[in-house]
Amino acid sequence: MGKNSLVIVGTMAIDALETPFGKEDSVFGGSASYAAYAASFFYPPSIVSIVGEDFPNEYRSLLEKRQIDLSHVEVHAGHTFRWRGRYGADLNVAETLETQINVLGDLHPRWNGKQTPEYLFLANVDPKVQLELLDQLERPRIKFVAADTMNFWIQSSRALLSKVLARIDMLVVNDGEARLLTRESSLIRAARKIQGEGPNIVVIKKGEHGVMLFHGERFLVLPAYPLEEVFDPTGAGDTFGGTLLGYLAREDKTDFDTFCRAVAYGTVVASFTVEKFGLDRLKSLTLSEINERLNQFRQICKIP
Amino acid sequence: MGKNSLVIVGTMAIDALETPFGKEDSVFGGSASYAAYAASFFYPPSIVSIVGEDFPNEYRSLLEKRQIDLSHVEVHAGHTFRWRGRYGADLNVAETLETQINVLGDLHPRWNGKQTPEYLFLANVDPKVQLELLDQLERPRIKFVAADTMNFWIQSSRALLSKVLARIDMLVVNDGEARLLTRESSLIRAARKIQGEGPNIVVIKKGEHGVMLFHGERFLVLPAYPLEEVFDPTGAGDTFGGTLLGYLAREDKTDFDTFCRAVAYGTVVASFTVEKFGLDRLKSLTLSEINERLNQFRQICKIP
Repeated sequence: MGKNSLVIVGTMAIDALETPFGKEDSVFGGSASYAAYAASFFYPPSIVSIVGEDFPNEYRSLLEKRQIDLSHVEVHAGHTFRWRGRYGADLNVAETLETQINVLGDLHPRWNGKQTPEYLFLANVDPKVQLELLDQLERPRIKFVAADTMNFWIQSSRALLSKVLARIDMLVVNDGEARLLTRESSLIRAARKIQGEGPNIVVIKKGEHGVMLFHGERFLVLPAYPLEEVFDPTGAGDTFGGTLLGYLAREDKTDFDTFCRAVAYGTVVASFTVEKFGLDRLKSLTLSEINERLNQFRQICKIP
Repeated sequence: MGKNSLVIVGTMAIDALETPFGKEDSVFGGSASYAAYAASFFYPPSIVSIVGEDFPNEYRSLLEKRQIDLSHVEVHAGHTFRWRGRYGADLNVAETLETQINVLGDLHPRWNGKQTPEYLFLANVDPKVQLELLDQLERPRIKFVAADTMNFWIQSSRALLSKVLARIDMLVVNDGEARLLTRESSLIRAARKIQGEGPNIVVIKKGEHGVMLFHGERFLVLPAYPLEEVFDPTGAGDTFGGTLLGYLAREDKTDFDTFCRAVAYGTVVASFTVEKFGLDRLKSLTLSEINERLNQFRQICKIP
């Protein structure tokens, strides 16, 4: 596989987080940052994103140490995207206190790599941006395109989102987003409707309640890895998606069994992310710890 | 095993149900009815309960056809316990519209069987009644005692409930009940606290989100069997508990692996219960349908 075989398009951000366990003012965040860091345990990706001139070198080197390619991250005049969020007692629900779009208002990603990527993950950004990127890459040369989205785009850009759905192989969303997108309360029916709009594979994340994978006619349902305490859920979904894509790129396969393992790995790596603030837990994480927890996970959800 | 090896203590009721899919005025319900019917697929139990003179013969013969022993169901002057409930769009939450305690106000169950039961399930009734029954049965001769409870008793009779907990082998509750009982938001910590009060085994039912089994130090986490539509969730929890006990009584074992299979069977039989009103789906259910769905369940939650 070539150097740019896995490309992740998404945000790089400076977050301010409040949880019942504490408060941090400058935490490295963003969908692309979490997804790429998680993917790097399996296959180092390239990030396509935009940051401001204030983007800390410390964040940059954190990713570069993981062999993540940042040559497609543009630095624009102005400030990096900032998100301020709060979690109450129910850590499943984030309350957005403030969003400073900053340089991201100007996000028109350009792919100038020598090769077309084989695996592409369009993390949660404006569907217009997702389409711009798809336009730049000739579809027949990409093996696999996955996308994420969120309530804001479902409500404001449903028509553009339909165009995205028609051009991707996999959509990864949470349960609320799947219901909003399809107006179906049953997640099985929601997934079938989404498949009807394009992607053969739909992954529905249910946070602490696990995940459902719909792969053509087949499906897998897994619980979350049970944790005694969740410290900061920020980035869990992006970690999950990034791990999925990293694993698929490493295996270079997208059949059902490979996907099941990818979903299990995604669950496990996300369970590490939420143990500390931001990327703190991933920073010290090793592949052998991931594999050890995967084995525990297999044990605790196995019917003998 | 003797004739009365599995005894289920609980309510027998006439329910009136409203769901988004329809309304029924007289539905055979009650915790003992669902639990015993479900158990009968594995091991026919005896029911200990009280009904009024209006208790329909039709309900009685429905249970007797399943070899369920009703000789410890007392008929008192007056009306059978009645519950009227409604489910909105969120089928996980039942709203109680009316409760007519009727003859159950007088529930002092008597065990006059020739043998002490080997497996005892104290379904959701007043902890005072659960204790009365435990007093009548010499503990050393019972192999296994399980109990269920509900928010009402947790709030009104916490001290009595502690006495129950000290004398049972297993508590089966839902996630909200486990949290209320222990004032712990983490279900793992809640289960450990409950174990600390007595039962070595704690089963936490999470409705459509599955189930957690804590068996000494070991545990199992399973998703629910995914259904396209839930029609009437009444009795799902009691079906789950009854199946669990029926399977344990049939196998006459309570080790971890047997328990894991019992929990999987409970999940599967409960998934049938919610497909129709009341006991309607269980009435036509066969053990081979149960085994077939169990095999599907194993497939859809297996990490290859």
